[in-house]
Amino acid sequence: MKPVAEGDRNTSCATLQDKVEIYEVVLRYCRGVDRADMDLVRSAYHPGAIDHHIGFDGSIDDFIQWLKDTISKYDSTTHIVGNHLASINGDRAVAETYGMGVHRVEQLDDPRNFTSGTRYVDRFERRSGRWAIVERWCVRDWARSDAGQSAPLGDGPRGSRSPDDPVLRALRWLDE
Amino acid sequence: MKPVAEGDRNTSCATLQDKVEIYEVVLRYCRGVDRADMDLVRSAYHPGAIDHHIGFDGSIDDFIQWLKDTISKYDSTTHIVGNHLASINGDRAVAETYGMGVHRVEQLDDPRNFTSGTRYVDRFERRSGRWAIVERWCVRDWARSDAGQSAPLGDGPRGSRSPDDPVLRALRWLDE
Amino acid sequence: MKPVAEGDRNTSCATLQDKVEIYEVVLRYCRGVDRADMDLVRSAYHPGAIDHHIGFDGSIDDFIQWLKDTISKYDSTTHIVGNHLASINGDRAVAETYGMGVHRVEQLDDPRNFTSGTRYVDRFERRSGRWAIVERWCVRDWARSDAGQSAPLGDGPRGSRSPDDPVLRALRWLDE
Repeated sequence: MKPVAEGDRNTSCATLQDKVEIYEVVLRYCRGVDRADMDLVRSAYHPGAIDHHIGFDGSIDDFIQWLKDTISKYDSTTHIVGNHLASINGDRAVAETYGMGVHRVEQLDDPRNFTSGTRYVDRFERRSGRWAIVERWCVRDWARSDAGQSAPLGDGPRGSRSPDDPVLRALRWLDE
Repeated sequence: MKPVAEGDRNTSCATLQDKVEIYEVVLRYCRGVDRADMDLVRSAYHPGAIDHHIGFDGSIDDFIQWLKDTISKYDSTTHIVGNHLASINGDRAVAETYGMGVHRVEQLDDPRNFTSGTRYVDRFERRSGRWAIVERWCVRDWARSDAGQSAPLGDGPRGSRSPDDPVLRALRWLDE
Repeated sequence: MKPVAEGDRNTSCATLQDKVEIYEVVLRYCRGVDRADMDLVRSAYHPGAIDHHIGFDGSIDDFIQWLKDTISKYDSTTHIVGNHLASINGDRAVAETYGMGVHRVEQLDDPRNFTSGTRYVDRFERRSGRWAIVERWCVRDWARSDAGQSAPLGDGPRGSRSPDDPVLRALRWLDE
């Protein structure tokens, strides 16, 4: 991003707006996976999009089915993301988002407890004013087994794949 | 967030401003805990706020005392956050912030070395122009023991709970 | 950041723009290290900058050489960052960025597999309209050995230190 002169501030705001919209698409994807809300996952992609994943390569329709099956093997998943760097060129953008996927089952020594380090490399397009992914590479950079290191959760608020998850309850309060 | 038409750009900037203010409230909370600055922690909440935490449930006043006691059991804590997704409706907002809390003691095989995976689910309100938390659920999604995996820090800059922490020293330079 | 009145919205947009520019400097540093692109790393600093690192203390020129040697000991590095809190005062800023560096070699039980928890504490200056670092403290808050926990990567997209990395390929598409 080039520094902007004072008179370009409005253009600059438009770019910021685009960047936030693109970032939030990635975040809704993560929330969709972790809350097992496949409609929310799908909303991150345009129709006809392609996903290149660890253990999957194909269309978004097939991806959704594969994802649903895959997350059902775990009691929970948590997709934390950090660095999000989007480059925009008109109605096209490329965003790189660093993250980790924490896969958990209740039996603490089970080998399904593992964490993967990934970068989402996304080609975005804006169609009819909506930014969404047209092609994703889920790049695996590292992985770690948590079997035998995974620990009990303690007493307090718990996540869920049902409408009882605290964030979904709080969002209903917002519309009261 | 809906795509905005060109003429809505100013409104859109206001939303961006709100989102950054809300995000920075969460970040000041993290800095407050990790630097053991309870005034900074408190600044993230409105008076009368409620916190639902792992091992605590009650008012912000009681939470501050509990937090102070809890972090004193560790040589350091590090609260890293990622995904921050805020939904705003007038003077109300709900923000979900994914994160990890790394708890460390110098004795590397001590079971107090552990990492927790959490989502802060926050109900925010804007009062007198200031966004702050009115109710928080600190949702525990995963946990991992680091006993026996925790490693020495090597030679270089160190964090601190005193005014000597590098970020606090740098902030004093900013006002010179 | 103070709440702004309606009439200050443009000023506020300028601050947002500054914050994004500063954030993206940090992200380009991370991408530079992980893709072994030393020109990109260097672009995060002004000439004459100083870096205080774990195992290094000196000028940016010497740092680049040290960094190049250091990352060559690993098959890959991944520098994930989260909390980014910038305080701006005119043409000066201080930014604190929490993160983790995941160091990986293909031999999974090798002690070089480790993760470090760091905060980048950066003094920024804007010179000729460009924000960049003039002094950095890479504060080590925690560290963890991943020897024996590091896991195979599975079948799917892979990262690289060559122009074949998926993000670099996608960026070329952006300019087509």
